Amino acid sequence: MEKEVNFGKLLHGGDYNPEQWLDYPEILEQDLAYFKKARINEVSLGMFSWAFLEPEEGVFRLEWLKEVIDRLYENEIVVMLSTPTAARPRWMTEKYPEVLRVNAARERNLYGERHNHCYTSPVYREKTRIINTKLAEMFKDHPGVIAWHISNEYGGECHCPLCQEAFRGWVKKKYGTLERLNRAWNTGFWSHTYQSFDQVESPSPKGDSSLHGLNLDWKRFVTDQTADFVKWEIKALRDAGAEQPSTINMMYNFTGLNYYKFADVIDFVSWDNYPTWHKEAETVTAMDTGMQHDIMRSIQKKPFYLMESCPSATNWQSVSKLKKPGMLQAASLQAVAHGSDSVLYFQMRQSRGASEKFHGAVIDHYGVSDTRVFREVAKVGVALEKLQEVNGSQNPAEAAVIYDVENRWAVEDAAGPRNAGVFYKETVEKPYQAFRKLGINVDLIDETRSLDGYRVVAAPMVYLLREGWTEKVRNFVKNGGIFLLTYWSGIVDETDLCYLGGTPHDLMDVMGFRSMEIDGLYDGEWNEGIPEPENPLHLERAYRCSHLCELVQPSTAEVLMTYGKDFYDGMPAMTRNVYGKGKAYAVCADFEQGLYDEVCRKLAEEAGVERIVEEVPEGVEVTMRKQKDGTRYVFVQNFSRETVEVKLPIERYPVWQGTYDGTIGSWKTIVLKGR
Amino acid sequence: MEKEVNFGKLLHGGDYNPEQWLDYPEILEQDLAYFKKARINEVSLGMFSWAFLEPEEGVFRLEWLKEVIDRLYENEIVVMLSTPTAARPRWMTEKYPEVLRVNAARERNLYGERHNHCYTSPVYREKTRIINTKLAEMFKDHPGVIAWHISNEYGGECHCPLCQEAFRGWVKKKYGTLERLNRAWNTGFWSHTYQSFDQVESPSPKGDSSLHGLNLDWKRFVTDQTADFVKWEIKALRDAGAEQPSTINMMYNFTGLNYYKFADVIDFVSWDNYPTWHKEAETVTAMDTGMQHDIMRSIQKKPFYLMESCPSATNWQSVSKLKKPGMLQAASLQAVAHGSDSVLYFQMRQSRGASEKFHGAVIDHYGVSDTRVFREVAKVGVALEKLQEVNGSQNPAEAAVIYDVENRWAVEDAAGPRNAGVFYKETVEKPYQAFRKLGINVDLIDETRSLDGYRVVAAPMVYLLREGWTEKVRNFVKNGGIFLLTYWSGIVDETDLCYLGGTPHDLMDVMGFRSMEIDGLYDGEWNEGIPEPENPLHLERAYRCSHLCELVQPSTAEVLMTYGKDFYDGMPAMTRNVYGKGKAYAVCADFEQGLYDEVCRKLAEEAGVERIVEEVPEGVEVTMRKQKDGTRYVFVQNFSRETVEVKLPIERYPVWQGTYDGTIGSWKTIVLKGR
Amino acid sequence: MEKEVNFGKLLHGGDYNPEQWLDYPEILEQDLAYFKKARINEVSLGMFSWAFLEPEEGVFRLEWLKEVIDRLYENEIVVMLSTPTAARPRWMTEKYPEVLRVNAARERNLYGERHNHCYTSPVYREKTRIINTKLAEMFKDHPGVIAWHISNEYGGECHCPLCQEAFRGWVKKKYGTLERLNRAWNTGFWSHTYQSFDQVESPSPKGDSSLHGLNLDWKRFVTDQTADFVKWEIKALRDAGAEQPSTINMMYNFTGLNYYKFADVIDFVSWDNYPTWHKEAETVTAMDTGMQHDIMRSIQKKPFYLMESCPSATNWQSVSKLKKPGMLQAASLQAVAHGSDSVLYFQMRQSRGASEKFHGAVIDHYGVSDTRVFREVAKVGVALEKLQEVNGSQNPAEAAVIYDVENRWAVEDAAGPRNAGVFYKETVEKPYQAFRKLGINVDLIDETRSLDGYRVVAAPMVYLLREGWTEKVRNFVKNGGIFLLTYWSGIVDETDLCYLGGTPHDLMDVMGFRSMEIDGLYDGEWNEGIPEPENPLHLERAYRCSHLCELVQPSTAEVLMTYGKDFYDGMPAMTRNVYGKGKAYAVCADFEQGLYDEVCRKLAEEAGVERIVEEVPEGVEVTMRKQKDGTRYVFVQNFSRETVEVKLPIERYPVWQGTYDGTIGSWKTIVLKGR
Repeated sequence: MEKEVNFGKLLHGGDYNPEQWLDYPEILEQDLAYFKKARINEVSLGMFSWAFLEPEEGVFRLEWLKEVIDRLYENEIVVMLSTPTAARPRWMTEKYPEVLRVNAARERNLYGERHNHCYTSPVYREKTRIINTKLAEMFKDHPGVIAWHISNEYGGECHCPLCQEAFRGWVKKKYGTLERLNRAWNTGFWSHTYQSFDQVESPSPKGDSSLHGLNLDWKRFVTDQTADFVKWEIKALRDAGAEQPSTINMMYNFTGLNYYKFADVIDFVSWDNYPTWHKEAETVTAMDTGMQHDIMRSIQKKPFYLMESCPSATNWQSVSKLKKPGMLQAASLQAVAHGSDSVLYFQMRQSRGASEKFHGAVIDHYGVSDTRVFREVAKVGVALEKLQEVNGSQNPAEAAVIYDVENRWAVEDAAGPRNAGVFYKETVEKPYQAFRKLGINVDLIDETRSLDGYRVVAAPMVYLLREGWTEKVRNFVKNGGIFLLTYWSGIVDETDLCYLGGTPHDLMDVMGFRSMEIDGLYDGEWNEGIPEPENPLHLERAYRCSHLCELVQPSTAEVLMTYGKDFYDGMPAMTRNVYGKGKAYAVCADFEQGLYDEVCRKLAEEAGVERIVEEVPEGVEVTMRKQKDGTRYVFVQNFSRETVEVKLPIERYPVWQGTYDGTIGSWKTIVLKGR
Repeated sequence: MEKEVNFGKLLHGGDYNPEQWLDYPEILEQDLAYFKKARINEVSLGMFSWAFLEPEEGVFRLEWLKEVIDRLYENEIVVMLSTPTAARPRWMTEKYPEVLRVNAARERNLYGERHNHCYTSPVYREKTRIINTKLAEMFKDHPGVIAWHISNEYGGECHCPLCQEAFRGWVKKKYGTLERLNRAWNTGFWSHTYQSFDQVESPSPKGDSSLHGLNLDWKRFVTDQTADFVKWEIKALRDAGAEQPSTINMMYNFTGLNYYKFADVIDFVSWDNYPTWHKEAETVTAMDTGMQHDIMRSIQKKPFYLMESCPSATNWQSVSKLKKPGMLQAASLQAVAHGSDSVLYFQMRQSRGASEKFHGAVIDHYGVSDTRVFREVAKVGVALEKLQEVNGSQNPAEAAVIYDVENRWAVEDAAGPRNAGVFYKETVEKPYQAFRKLGINVDLIDETRSLDGYRVVAAPMVYLLREGWTEKVRNFVKNGGIFLLTYWSGIVDETDLCYLGGTPHDLMDVMGFRSMEIDGLYDGEWNEGIPEPENPLHLERAYRCSHLCELVQPSTAEVLMTYGKDFYDGMPAMTRNVYGKGKAYAVCADFEQGLYDEVCRKLAEEAGVERIVEEVPEGVEVTMRKQKDGTRYVFVQNFSRETVEVKLPIERYPVWQGTYDGTIGSWKTIVLKGR
Repeated sequence: MEKEVNFGKLLHGGDYNPEQWLDYPEILEQDLAYFKKARINEVSLGMFSWAFLEPEEGVFRLEWLKEVIDRLYENEIVVMLSTPTAARPRWMTEKYPEVLRVNAARERNLYGERHNHCYTSPVYREKTRIINTKLAEMFKDHPGVIAWHISNEYGGECHCPLCQEAFRGWVKKKYGTLERLNRAWNTGFWSHTYQSFDQVESPSPKGDSSLHGLNLDWKRFVTDQTADFVKWEIKALRDAGAEQPSTINMMYNFTGLNYYKFADVIDFVSWDNYPTWHKEAETVTAMDTGMQHDIMRSIQKKPFYLMESCPSATNWQSVSKLKKPGMLQAASLQAVAHGSDSVLYFQMRQSRGASEKFHGAVIDHYGVSDTRVFREVAKVGVALEKLQEVNGSQNPAEAAVIYDVENRWAVEDAAGPRNAGVFYKETVEKPYQAFRKLGINVDLIDETRSLDGYRVVAAPMVYLLREGWTEKVRNFVKNGGIFLLTYWSGIVDETDLCYLGGTPHDLMDVMGFRSMEIDGLYDGEWNEGIPEPENPLHLERAYRCSHLCELVQPSTAEVLMTYGKDFYDGMPAMTRNVYGKGKAYAVCADFEQGLYDEVCRKLAEEAGVERIVEEVPEGVEVTMRKQKDGTRYVFVQNFSRETVEVKLPIERYPVWQGTYDGTIGSWKTIVLKGR
């Protein structure tokens, strides 16, 4: 369903709930004035509005919404219109308890909170179809409604009888025969053999919790069933004639769903970004947030939308810290740098009561615009207006890091060498950060994605091999690619069945070694990698490693580093294998960031990856967007607390936004422009 | 129902369970001898005795109890007689499961433990009425029964269908219309609008848990329903002709009920005091315990009763430490100093089995009186006999600190700037302790209480404003009162709806500023307050603050201190505003104790609060009781581990009890007496 | 049912699941070759095989198993055959949900995991009877089947209605009358009196959780009901004519069952040993493991079998560390030294999927024998062949430490002076380790066992007195025994009823003192014991104590040490009493290991306990087995990381295995042999 999406401008705005203020008609007018003052050109409406849209079953009240949208449009503010399905009216659960979720212990929820509905329930689907149809009929041709925001922050799962039945159907369709099912999940272990598909049940703390093949397929089912529900929501809109593009708003580091599978379900990706700025050093937070932006961009490899962010402090974190002056702008422009065509907030106006009443907002309970936060928002508005021509440009990348949610599910659930933590996310971050410190754009792709067009690919902890991935790797290296694989890779197939005959499965020739054993280290324990004399990568210093140390037996691989301690002192800790026209490197243990920084720099150089800024100082991010006409926008952002010196290539890329005198100030952004 | 309560003497005794020893007739006689030896003049009987009083449904056995009471009375020991409702016979739950509680997840308990009954159940109420009637009929005229001890340590809640129905009725009565209900709880948020009162349900981890208005009203309902049950219990006694005064025994820092609402339900307040002496410095524990005593006294502003305390070590704390020699006496007399007309223990004789078998007792399993603990108890008996004329005297206070349980419920549940802890109790303690270190009596009153008669009032973190409170504050200051307000005050109304238009609501003129933002600080982070040059309070040193820093915009207020760090460096951290004849001070951040010590001393001086002992050394408590005839008893207690020098005003108040040579020994008490 | 068990050789092998490889016929043949290579002479079969043995209800498939056993036997590999009851086929739970467990909250499990069945269910018992009968009929005369391994790692409990009914019957049988029941559990407390046996229910977080008598009896019932089920399993085998000896595999430090009560139920004890080698110092782990071996041996006071151990890393611990070279052999021979007649592994071949797929195995997924782990296993095989004549020998002991599971249940549940931890296990370890450091064999016996034949007995924290134990102690001391008792002993009877009249109950004369009070110390707090001048044990240095300090009043006892701090400064901290021909020592507080090391050495000397090696260096274990003909095998094992000097008595006991040059290498074993 993916289509070209471009709203013609960078959007500035966010979630707005006028239904909470219907008793205060003066508020909407006041807000319009404030919006203008802050250069707001978009708001997101309708989220959680079902009780206002359908106050009784079958009784619809959409007029108030139309009036608001009309009035906004008159003021040049467009709307992303949300379907209201993330929360439901009380009458619905009172009459149809089946719409409520059942947890893994098989207990049905009561009405309450949000995101508390069964995705399978025919009743819920029908009620959804009806309300979405009503919305579509009313707004399909409204010029102010530019997109459909489907529900809100999809997530969670339901274990009700209807979902069990759907899961059984899903399993039957996937495996066809009991024999295939039993083999895939290795049910012979502990006599778990299925004698009938009717015996299939979702995992449960009261039943099966460690049949890993079942766990994995259940998570796949949850993603598929959620996607099916999203499709159902969109179909209702399309059937009623609404053609505006659709999105769902995704979440930070969320593993409840495999977002990559939504690439074909929605028209554009959007996400909600709530970093805890000022908790750790801002440079650390910026790197973390940057990776999430890049994941979101990589799902469809095109611009995404920052759907929510906080103009000030949140209220749901353990400590809600005020954003210090300038942070909002730096964070907002970071999103744009990484490929967002919007800066949107939750929320435009603070609600008076209930669980988000203290969440930061453009307009707070005080209700006047002479606040620090409002002024900071208005400054972002000004900055975005200056950057308008960036809208719609891409972030081309020559480096990729494999980030695969299904692999993550498997490796974190595996019952393997380190149940106290395998640090999958951190292992992905290490090569990502190493590349980013060079100012290189990086894609984060899963195993289903193509490796074509990349010069260097890092594959951290690819424990689970998805069909066809090793073939892609083989071809990539054979054809000259520079490839980096880590320990604990190539271990199991898609249902967590261990490969027999040696690992990394199907890559032992490419890597030039076989993995023999893997050692778990307790927290605080460490080993180290000592460079081999005259190693071809010219590594000269030792690095520490921890958590997991793999012992490998090289066949054709050269040894770059060896362990410095324990009974595997002297055994390989890092290798490289020449394969075809390319090279395959291996990192055998969980090394510190420094090793990745040195190695990835050398690999990028070997691969000939372009670097726009030759030396990127610590704490500075360099990110490049490229317009269809070839124009490049180079965002240089300093997330450190000090002004730093940086040599920018202003001959080729003159300064376009910001000021440059050989330095860049703390939390400042400079944008260069050129070709 | 409050009446004048005075038993004519300070009581010494405690909980006694002869029903556990009915097979050992020699035990009662032995105990009587021991009681005499230890100057015991009261015991509390009947708690948890239902299975002995009504061994089968409708079959009553009260004779054994009468015999015990007769025998005690012959020995000049009076009785507080407990209704047995805190635990019930097994036959009752077997026949009527409805009397058992249902938890918030809607699961009904099994028979077990105590405090496990539904306060709404008509069956439980009827069974209670019958047994209370039987007790009243038997003991209404018994001269040995001086008071009714209603049940035991009320607390907990029930979510059964009967309670849901009662809650719905409560809500309907409070709000009348759905419109008012929906507005009060701001149900528009997340489409939580009620379409019918039938949809109202108590909060639940499976349903609504963060609709704060609902949460607050549920807690109010639990208090009201509990109070209603207490009234029901008392009514049964009164209807049967029993006129002895009634009490319930309250608990330390308990927030399950709003005890202040029981002021009119019972005739006198009593409570159970189990400090962990010797865990922290005794001076710290004494301050903490003292505040609880003062809360209990402030509920009815008259003498209370120490209903339970441990003569030695408890058995239910994580570590049960022996009370060191002398501690029992110091702790017991502290209760009397703060307004208790009794020193009672749990328990007179240790039970042989079950969960409190190792709880300290006057007579332990050994069963002989030649124990250290028995000797310590007997010494307390002697001391109380000497203090008899203190009985019935008041603790007049010129200083008050606002402590409000409904506000506490709200601010701790708010989902606000610091979910990792707002430290409400600690914030109340700071001005309390500052005043107490001056030897000033302090009342702890909630927002419903009058401010009349106080010279200085501290109002820490008054987040939720109860109806009429700001008006009382305004008049207090206008008429010359000295008032201290802290950050995070005046934020919401009684159903947690945020005030619009600026905060502290309705006090911006009195305080002379508007609060703009509030910053959450992580654990370990801090800022500081730097005194303004030549500030009117003559503050000269800086103090640290943490957790929460509020940023305010002064209108008429003078700035006394400013922040020393972060982006709000230089903004006000403490202010004062002259308003009418009084002054309103504000502390804008969570400052260390030292600031309160200095500020409260200066405010007390400014307010002209009387201080009996001019310089109170650290660790020494000075507390004053005043008899109707004007006689004052000044208790001076040294809770430090060292003998300290102290200058006592023995000209006006000669030494009455204890010895004074210019010093006071560790854990010693001196009582002065004068007018 | 206990019988003489001797399989004629030390067994080497372990768990094997060929049913998971039935599709790979080449695997079995390959495995046979590997087994030969590694000197494997036994495998354990059939565990968790029910779905393969009875794929549909009433349809049996045992042929595959027979074929495997035949083929193994042809290759001189014998089999311990497991009943399959630890996991069940799905068809069974689908048709008979009653076979699944119900937890303490009264919720029935779903099908899943293992060990998830009701021991009471008539259906489960009948299905068990049938399958066990089938197995017995097929294999009762098979010369390759040497023993029956009943189910797997029994444990857990069921609270279903059938179990409640059985528990009620158990209680009724034990107590006969309600009066006796009510007295035993002291139900008068909190009105818990039973009016009918029908009111008896198992403990529950939703009902009674702190009626300690009930808790204790419930645990006893769980042991008895489990034992009853084991008997039922064995009866089915015997009824079908199978006479091979039976065992169950026990677990490390498991308190869910009282293993000592199985001494008469099974023919031999076996257990599964999974120490976390290399987590702490190996010397610490060896001491801990050694004690578990000695517990297992002490249950029947005869050789036991190491049923499971890991040839490499496990996969279910938080960190799964590789066994370093040599560790497997040291650990394996430690088992033999302590009385095991086997070294068996889990598992022979790694399964491909599900929750133990990464558990270490003799043959891993790679599937070839050229691995480090395989070579280590083969080395153990060689060592065991050399040690064959040790098979069947005993471990005679002159020292005993009381370790009593029922006492442990009680003292850890008691709600006493230190709910934050009484450290029962650690208190048992202290004298155990002190004796073991002298190279003395130690038995760990419960209170039901005889004290005859021991010279010295340590009784740590014997809180609960089992019937007859004090009489045994009295006689032991009277007749010249050296006895050591600690604090918190002799407090309650078998249903946790406190003894009246002074403690340690019935031993005050033997010990020569009465205990008066016990003080709980917070973590980090300490006191110390100061030796009395010229004390008869010649103690000269002070030792620290923590957690619990008991205050005792000596009658006839001499004081050896006194406390050095707190209000009990100068009171006895250690005493000794001469009683009859023996001496009774008391340790009054939780002293550090050093005190036990010094005291136990002196007590062993006083008692005349034989010590084979005069000075045992730190980290070295000396353990002695003795064959019927009087031959002694002295195992000397060095668990430290350094080679150490040790003087061995090679004149009397020449070196039999290993090499000795005045030193012993790290993780090396030397075996001496002599008479």
